[in-house]
Amino acid sequence: MKSSQLASSTVKIECWSFIELSLEGPIDGNPFMDVHLQAKFQHKQRVIDVDGFYDGNGVYKIRFMPDTEGEWTYSVSSNIAVLNGSAGGFVCSAASVGNHGPVHVGDTDRFAYADGTTYRPYGTTCYVWTHQEEALQEQTLQSLSHSPFNKIRMCVFPKRYSFNTNEPEHFPFVGSKTDGFDWTRFNPLYFARLEQRIGELQRLGIEADLILFHPYDNGQWGFDRMDAETDEFYLRYVIARLSAFRNIWWSLANEFDFMKEKKLDDWDRFFRIVQESDPYQHLRSIHNGTKMYDPTHLTIYDHTKPWVTHASMQYWELSPTTAWRKLYRKPIVVDECCYEGNLPQRWGNITGEDMTARMWDGFMRGGYVGHGETFLHPDEIVWWSKGGQLYGDSPARIAFLRQIFDASPEGITPIETFRDAPTLGIEGAYYLQYFGVHRPAYRELPLPEESCFQIEVIDTWNMTITALTGVYSGLTRVNMPATPYIALRAYRVERVGN
Amino acid sequence: MKSSQLASSTVKIECWSFIELSLEGPIDGNPFMDVHLQAKFQHKQRVIDVDGFYDGNGVYKIRFMPDTEGEWTYSVSSNIAVLNGSAGGFVCSAASVGNHGPVHVGDTDRFAYADGTTYRPYGTTCYVWTHQEEALQEQTLQSLSHSPFNKIRMCVFPKRYSFNTNEPEHFPFVGSKTDGFDWTRFNPLYFARLEQRIGELQRLGIEADLILFHPYDNGQWGFDRMDAETDEFYLRYVIARLSAFRNIWWSLANEFDFMKEKKLDDWDRFFRIVQESDPYQHLRSIHNGTKMYDPTHLTIYDHTKPWVTHASMQYWELSPTTAWRKLYRKPIVVDECCYEGNLPQRWGNITGEDMTARMWDGFMRGGYVGHGETFLHPDEIVWWSKGGQLYGDSPARIAFLRQIFDASPEGITPIETFRDAPTLGIEGAYYLQYFGVHRPAYRELPLPEESCFQIEVIDTWNMTITALTGVYSGLTRVNMPATPYIALRAYRVERVGN
Repeated sequence: MKSSQLASSTVKIECWSFIELSLEGPIDGNPFMDVHLQAKFQHKQRVIDVDGFYDGNGVYKIRFMPDTEGEWTYSVSSNIAVLNGSAGGFVCSAASVGNHGPVHVGDTDRFAYADGTTYRPYGTTCYVWTHQEEALQEQTLQSLSHSPFNKIRMCVFPKRYSFNTNEPEHFPFVGSKTDGFDWTRFNPLYFARLEQRIGELQRLGIEADLILFHPYDNGQWGFDRMDAETDEFYLRYVIARLSAFRNIWWSLANEFDFMKEKKLDDWDRFFRIVQESDPYQHLRSIHNGTKMYDPTHLTIYDHTKPWVTHASMQYWELSPTTAWRKLYRKPIVVDECCYEGNLPQRWGNITGEDMTARMWDGFMRGGYVGHGETFLHPDEIVWWSKGGQLYGDSPARIAFLRQIFDASPEGITPIETFRDAPTLGIEGAYYLQYFGVHRPAYRELPLPEESCFQIEVIDTWNMTITALTGVYSGLTRVNMPATPYIALRAYRVERVGN
Repeated sequence: MKSSQLASSTVKIECWSFIELSLEGPIDGNPFMDVHLQAKFQHKQRVIDVDGFYDGNGVYKIRFMPDTEGEWTYSVSSNIAVLNGSAGGFVCSAASVGNHGPVHVGDTDRFAYADGTTYRPYGTTCYVWTHQEEALQEQTLQSLSHSPFNKIRMCVFPKRYSFNTNEPEHFPFVGSKTDGFDWTRFNPLYFARLEQRIGELQRLGIEADLILFHPYDNGQWGFDRMDAETDEFYLRYVIARLSAFRNIWWSLANEFDFMKEKKLDDWDRFFRIVQESDPYQHLRSIHNGTKMYDPTHLTIYDHTKPWVTHASMQYWELSPTTAWRKLYRKPIVVDECCYEGNLPQRWGNITGEDMTARMWDGFMRGGYVGHGETFLHPDEIVWWSKGGQLYGDSPARIAFLRQIFDASPEGITPIETFRDAPTLGIEGAYYLQYFGVHRPAYRELPLPEESCFQIEVIDTWNMTITALTGVYSGLTRVNMPATPYIALRAYRVERVGN
């Protein structure tokens, strides 16, 4: 009665990639609703329960991402006899170079890959790039491959919004806008194509910050106003299909507060569904629209709730990052702080200088800030929505920012004794200080007396690093170019000679 | 027994200038402490009590600023017989051109001169310009005369601070740093020189926002730690001498929260002393240092207290101006939001673009923002402290800002239906919208259908006004230069021709 195509223990699966069990079962009735399928994956005494999903044409799949090297076994169970009882095993081998596993929260407000490597999100946003025609999707991947970005915000559902009125070809549910949707049947073709793109992002080292709900529907298709049962049906299917991708993050919503059909309780419920369904506990967040932060209320959704792994913010100013870090004690990701571009909308028309400076501002305060690009385009191909090409001045500078942070020692953290300019570092060893729009003609750096430091003046806009000759100790006056967007870097060196 | 030099009713005094009664009296003992002198000034049934003051060398003075045209009489009383019983009168004549009287709060969060003319403060700061050598003071006045500024923040007491370590020649009290001060005797020479400068500012149309206490002493001279009795003695003397100047504003303190010797109660007490002593009820405010505004507390000093006429803020961001207007229902003056310059200190090294943009930002939200300039100077003559010359790029742009506001119709007010860009205007008649660092390629202006509008694109940095050809009604797309610091102005015009 077994129909597993993968039952040999000689199968080898790289750690944090996934094994996919494919089984044949009933095609009649509504398998999405009627068939339940799970597997237990076991390594030594540890057992992990994983849900399967129906992939159409009588094919049922179970995906599993092992996180530990060695021998694993599994057994499948189902309410359908033909699917029940499969068993087998595989060997989990060492992760290959560049595979660090999924990203989790490391130390309080820091991210880390599963293998312990520091992860800092240099994110961008292309909300519905996977809903565009093939050639454009390929171009987006091409652009990403030459970019500094290692996270992308993207939506499961299609989007109807300014500069985005083209009807997509495929939908998560069976149906179309004209014919309506069958809320009891998913479209495996849609998901297969989405998975292809998530896999390609993974190969580029890019985390897919997948947006599960969003308000840019307004009843156009109805994905923003499904009933509670359908919402849960949808979430469980998505998680069963996608959670084995190590580069998946769950963004419960974009601008959740604009979704008038949902209440705050709904978001709690969704978080709990995701939390209880995802065997890997991928990162979970929720992203606000307006009114998230003002003197009278901090956030509409309370990011201190236990199922929120990190704060995903929209806010235009980065100086509150420090306060948010202390309030939430979780990583702070300001995914939207305005985009480089020239759209009429306020959120989409800042300069490359400003985009770059906002990212530096947030990073220097111990948070993370996302990029977006919104230039008018004759064919309405705007990066933030559809992907395509990058035209802005900021991506090159974000690559430079990433280079600076990649070169920083492990464990740098905000040093708040420097009150007038955000400073990261390790006391006595390393200091990185950023001046943003401020342009001092000189600065006095209070370096420790007992060590020698190399000092560099970094122009974050012109992407230059100018080392001062000699080494320095104690209070050191550094002449500065008196232009905006300058950083100072000082790091301990061994004194050479006398 | 009378010794009044002005007792003839043929004396004519321009409205809102002042009459000065000068009387001779005792020179022995301590006249500052021992002699009390007041006058009642009367116009019809209205009587105003005014305190006199000792001006040294046996001379006692009473100054009075009439606010109503017509015949006034006065009578002097004193605890000293020789000063008691003088009486006389004068005629108050119409104010001359350019004399609009003192500034008061007009409609809620607006200022107006006594004659009803709108007053908008385009302020600057030269804290201790009157404590510098004569030639430098003359240069400061020369610079001011060519500037757009119509308010200046300046201190009674000298200042000891970075770039400001020269010892002044004269002090409000008799004495010196080396010999100590006699806290019971004022120095009339100091005040005569101060008054000369206040008079010269008045002739330039500049309000003197006089700072009565400040923390930049730190016990150097001790003016920041006088006892309660001396504080009051000082306040009453200053008010008796200076309140007849129509261009006086009382700033209780600069960065009051840095004055460790004073408690919050002291500031309430000082406000009440000023309020009960000043016959003209000049504007009263208090200016904060740090921590005035963050998510957890609005202001340390509560500007809703009845003796505070307007909020005098230090804050680096102008977007809260709208919230402050609604909270305090008083004029909001952000006297310090960082200064154009290149000092090492964070508050003193923003660009001219940024200084100008911050001023526009605050003005466009219905508030007022002050200028300051802080460039390194070989002789440490920094405008913000000592005056001298202006080197920055912002004053010319502030003149342009003033020109735009001077040309605006009476009664413009923030129109909050434009949520994405601060907009001032009169619905249906006039709209002024500012984009700051945002640089849209076009904007859609929802003009009323029933009227015709002239539209102008204003480059607030390059100081150009470009009128669109034709007139417009209804939703109008305006092509924009897609550069920062642009404003749009639309005003109703009569349709000419068809």
